Amino acid sequence: MAASKAFEARDPEFQAKVRESFERQGLMKHLGAQISELRPGLCEIRVPFRNELSQQHGYFHGGVTGAIADSACGYAAFSLMPADYSVLAVEYKLNLVAPAMGEMLVARGQVIRAGRTLTIARADVFVVKDGAETLCATSLSTIMALAGKSDS
Amino acid sequence: MAASKAFEARDPEFQAKVRESFERQGLMKHLGAQISELRPGLCEIRVPFRNELSQQHGYFHGGVTGAIADSACGYAAFSLMPADYSVLAVEYKLNLVAPAMGEMLVARGQVIRAGRTLTIARADVFVVKDGAETLCATSLSTIMALAGKSDS
Amino acid sequence: MAASKAFEARDPEFQAKVRESFERQGLMKHLGAQISELRPGLCEIRVPFRNELSQQHGYFHGGVTGAIADSACGYAAFSLMPADYSVLAVEYKLNLVAPAMGEMLVARGQVIRAGRTLTIARADVFVVKDGAETLCATSLSTIMALAGKSDS
Amino acid sequence: MAASKAFEARDPEFQAKVRESFERQGLMKHLGAQISELRPGLCEIRVPFRNELSQQHGYFHGGVTGAIADSACGYAAFSLMPADYSVLAVEYKLNLVAPAMGEMLVARGQVIRAGRTLTIARADVFVVKDGAETLCATSLSTIMALAGKSDS
Repeated sequence: MAASKAFEARDPEFQAKVRESFERQGLMKHLGAQISELRPGLCEIRVPFRNELSQQHGYFHGGVTGAIADSACGYAAFSLMPADYSVLAVEYKLNLVAPAMGEMLVARGQVIRAGRTLTIARADVFVVKDGAETLCATSLSTIMALAGKSDS
Repeated sequence: MAASKAFEARDPEFQAKVRESFERQGLMKHLGAQISELRPGLCEIRVPFRNELSQQHGYFHGGVTGAIADSACGYAAFSLMPADYSVLAVEYKLNLVAPAMGEMLVARGQVIRAGRTLTIARADVFVVKDGAETLCATSLSTIMALAGKSDS
Repeated sequence: MAASKAFEARDPEFQAKVRESFERQGLMKHLGAQISELRPGLCEIRVPFRNELSQQHGYFHGGVTGAIADSACGYAAFSLMPADYSVLAVEYKLNLVAPAMGEMLVARGQVIRAGRTLTIARADVFVVKDGAETLCATSLSTIMALAGKSDS
Repeated sequence: MAASKAFEARDPEFQAKVRESFERQGLMKHLGAQISELRPGLCEIRVPFRNELSQQHGYFHGGVTGAIADSACGYAAFSLMPADYSVLAVEYKLNLVAPAMGEMLVARGQVIRAGRTLTIARADVFVVKDGAETLCATSLSTIMALAGKSDS
């Protein structure tokens, strides 16, 4: 509903910075997740289904949904930070609105408001089945900027 | 603050039922998580640290914290359900209150209120470092009971 | 990000039903709040500033923001229910993203997903100052449908 | 579940400071709410029922529940701050676990973790009916400390 704002990156190297940080997240690799789109204030993460990601009924586990929503929001926020900043997730909230049954999960995180200390981001998570996307979760995250603490 | 209530299991086989369901969660095995305590309305899940579970600074990823908090709350709720019921996580909220740096993560989920359709549960997540526990996250979950849908 | 869906009301009298229910909310009258727009799956609520609605620094209190976000989401959900249904808020989450300082607060609630038992809705709350709107909060709510329990 | 910690106030005048700030919250007076207990890291707020606080079925409106939970958490956090600090609510999440039907609502806010910038607090809200307390809501809040910005 809120008009989507165009954000500008303060670090011209944000693409390399975000992707390099993502590579260091052991969990994202362990889940098989990858960044599929990255723009200032926006990060999309995809993960294909495997049995290792399931809950008891064979759908994607809500923990996978939360993990990629959390990372998508965190990196959407991180993309807007100056070069010598790091980020820390403070909290996130996830509504699981439909069973995540399908061959792929896609989380689209986007910054709603970038403050000096705190950034608020939202992610919508879609499950792809036979090529069609269905919204399966939506989340809200708060991310704290840590000045003078380079991420790497 | 709310006095901890004693809950009674309506399914005498709840121990076997919960553990068998947990075994079917591919994600819990993939993360290396195990149920370390199970009583009516209470479920504790532990996961030892490995690099595969890290975020970019080498701590446990918030997605792991959320995943075991979500499962601990879900199984705390499931332990109270009749035999022919299944459960579905509706939403969860997680506050990450300290860096999850240590050798083990422990999520203790407990039911706050068990309603006919919805159960509310809370998890506290502790990180164990050199044997000492520190609270690193706290969560609130809503779980829906699905009558007449056996879990397996 | 999620494409806005067009919802259809199953109760042709939803306009009268929702407004009559809103009139019975003593709190909305006490706060001076009014419904300013109502369509299937969408409800907008406005409240002008007065000192009775302030927090300690003279802005709108976060409790007012939460109250109208909660009601806007609840009535957005209620607008889609059959005639003999009632609704109950299960939980809501509110991120306060900017100080709510201005002459008017506007909450726009819209349904994200309408399930058989649970409906998920989102509200964006704007503060109006000198005629310009600024996003000051965003929320996510879960609403339960109660079949066979007329609201009045 | 987390052991309740004893907090120490860094401002010896915290009692006067918190109560004076509370008096400036126009909304708390408008709702008829009062602080009934205040200790370092803990704040209890009570509000008697009147029709002006109702939702459509005659219970306390979830917005009242949220407002006093929010204030109880905010003042529990504020009680621990140095004299020249102010606080700002960043977000809160509320699960409404039982209908709030009764003659009084009591929110007990307590700090879970007091960080340098962010404080996490939890509130349990009870409804009192015929003298007996029932848990009707539970919340989690994040509060930001603003250094060098006196509250008054």
